[in-house]
Amino acid sequence: MVTSSFGAHYREVEIGEIVILARDEPLVLECGESISQFPLAYQTYGTLNAKRNNAILICHALSGDQYLCGTHPVTGKGGWWERMVGPGKPIDTGKYFVICSNVIGSCMGSFGPKEINPKTGKPYGLSFPFITIGDMVRAQALLVEYLGIEKLFAVIGGSMGGMQALEWAARFPEKVFAVVPIATSTRQSAQNIAFHEIGRQAIMADPDWCEGDYLAQRKYPAKGLSVARMAAHVTYVSQTMLQEKFGRNLQDREAYTFGFDADFKIESYLRHQGVSFVERFDANSYLYLTRAASYFDLTEGGTRKLTDIFAGTHIRFCVVSFSSDWLYSSVESRNLVRALNAVAANVSFTEIQCDQGHDSFLLDVPEFDALLAGFIQGSATLYGVGA
Amino acid sequence: MVTSSFGAHYREVEIGEIVILARDEPLVLECGESISQFPLAYQTYGTLNAKRNNAILICHALSGDQYLCGTHPVTGKGGWWERMVGPGKPIDTGKYFVICSNVIGSCMGSFGPKEINPKTGKPYGLSFPFITIGDMVRAQALLVEYLGIEKLFAVIGGSMGGMQALEWAARFPEKVFAVVPIATSTRQSAQNIAFHEIGRQAIMADPDWCEGDYLAQRKYPAKGLSVARMAAHVTYVSQTMLQEKFGRNLQDREAYTFGFDADFKIESYLRHQGVSFVERFDANSYLYLTRAASYFDLTEGGTRKLTDIFAGTHIRFCVVSFSSDWLYSSVESRNLVRALNAVAANVSFTEIQCDQGHDSFLLDVPEFDALLAGFIQGSATLYGVGA
Repeated sequence: MVTSSFGAHYREVEIGEIVILARDEPLVLECGESISQFPLAYQTYGTLNAKRNNAILICHALSGDQYLCGTHPVTGKGGWWERMVGPGKPIDTGKYFVICSNVIGSCMGSFGPKEINPKTGKPYGLSFPFITIGDMVRAQALLVEYLGIEKLFAVIGGSMGGMQALEWAARFPEKVFAVVPIATSTRQSAQNIAFHEIGRQAIMADPDWCEGDYLAQRKYPAKGLSVARMAAHVTYVSQTMLQEKFGRNLQDREAYTFGFDADFKIESYLRHQGVSFVERFDANSYLYLTRAASYFDLTEGGTRKLTDIFAGTHIRFCVVSFSSDWLYSSVESRNLVRALNAVAANVSFTEIQCDQGHDSFLLDVPEFDALLAGFIQGSATLYGVGA
Repeated sequence: MVTSSFGAHYREVEIGEIVILARDEPLVLECGESISQFPLAYQTYGTLNAKRNNAILICHALSGDQYLCGTHPVTGKGGWWERMVGPGKPIDTGKYFVICSNVIGSCMGSFGPKEINPKTGKPYGLSFPFITIGDMVRAQALLVEYLGIEKLFAVIGGSMGGMQALEWAARFPEKVFAVVPIATSTRQSAQNIAFHEIGRQAIMADPDWCEGDYLAQRKYPAKGLSVARMAAHVTYVSQTMLQEKFGRNLQDREAYTFGFDADFKIESYLRHQGVSFVERFDANSYLYLTRAASYFDLTEGGTRKLTDIFAGTHIRFCVVSFSSDWLYSSVESRNLVRALNAVAANVSFTEIQCDQGHDSFLLDVPEFDALLAGFIQGSATLYGVGA
């Protein structure tokens, strides 16, 4: 167990399992820098079977972490995919060995900008190297190797987690049987690059960001990070959902106050999203991870074709999108599916009809649960899991 | 001519015509405060005819002003609707007397938070009273009266200007012959309230905002206002347009820099939008005007029906929406049109197919030009303009 400091109040929190990776040879990052002996924090759920063929790696999204279920050490709430992962759940920890690691660049114990740079004795801040989705995945591959698993049964992820799932399929086709990219894309769109830029500018506009050196200076860009989260959160939900859930309802008042207080429920809700995020997330991590997502492009600027990347793949794909997701719309998933079909890959595609928007993969969408449970069960039979 | 200071550098700029309104009796604002002898800045184009029946009032949007065409005194560029207004243009200043006034709460010479409070000798800042869309329109009505016009031939406006057009139709049905609400709604949606809240939070997070007192303290929340504008600008354009115009193109570089500089063209473009806005707009005005827009709801929280509001109206309506506008989608316009149809009002509705998004009404959309020109010409014949 290792402790780490969190959020605006610098609470010390016990992180779960942490492994030191790249002990023997360094991992060369896409930016050109090398990292060695870096920490990767992870959680596992369930038991690895004797055949070592029941491991499912779940990749978390931008603001997620390794806590899929159980009590989260920072928030005190349940994990982010408690609905989906556990005994008897669609991803059944009674049958599968589920792994989730905190991506490098993040802030829940893995190698990230708030960790201490051994060369200076201070947090990395902006001296942290730039990481990519590919780097995150290669770090995960080192963890999988460390856990003694030669081939993963499945890699599953939504949003930025879906990008990682696609990177697994592209980089390590022999190391995974099934891949489930959910509400994601093979390359970040201009609109998504734009929203991430707004978030970064909000953080960097905050003087308490201190050019990234806030931890050393015992400050915190709480306001900037909060605005960044608010701007992001609006993109995670659909207009329909916002209208139905909040509409123009007022927050604990009968009439407009003619002021800048949170008169509307939606304003109060958004402010809460911002403030609670600040308590659990590191501002520099937010910069690095949004940068990694913006850089994500499987086609490498159009120099590679998706059909070349996936030609001859034996992976079983289950591509999922949500009809009300305007951040990673179904069009993005269809582009991927079209390429996979063109190389005769084994791919199913489902656009789930629901109103919740991009965050649907985190919310109560029974059709999605059933879809995922079915795909995993069918694939497990084919792969001989538990047999 | 009056001068006024602008933007981060406090340039002194000559504003055009300004009239002092509410000389005899004060205007009671919806917030309860009264204002008297307040300035309203405006521009006129063309000549009022002898019958005084050729006046068109154009209402500007959130960040617009009275400069429809000609050289803008702050930016040095053309006005915001130069494409639409001028001799031989769809709104032909050879035939019509076009009026555009800076809304109260704004910052181009009309009564707004950056004007000097005579009681204190300092800029109003947050001591400025809260204004509503209805207040803006009643101030415009005083201007129209001052100009000696009993009845306007038409009131035209897009976005927040469309809200004003609808207020004219609701409040002063006898004072206007035709109304053209463009890319607007009868009430601000939850999503739009959310985006405005993000913008305000970005401004108020900037310590140079000084709790609204930045002008007196010779500071300026340039970073906060810039982030607010960036967050708003993304909502003004469609995903398709962003993808086609910018995609993942890099800005003056061949490869990622692995840094937080504007690697992508879309990032550079957005930053430019933010910075140039700061030069011409007042941060407190942005707070007040977004608040006014969020408060806008013709149905007054559902206590009034649109069909009651418009029952018996003689106004000719031309409702316009744009297919790619996700901020004020066609659904909003259809709701209005449904109510107008239900009271047998004279209404045409056109959803223009185009890719540019909400800002389409400011951009080159020939079908829109033709639509507006046709409606105005037809209405002018009916109304006997120039006859």
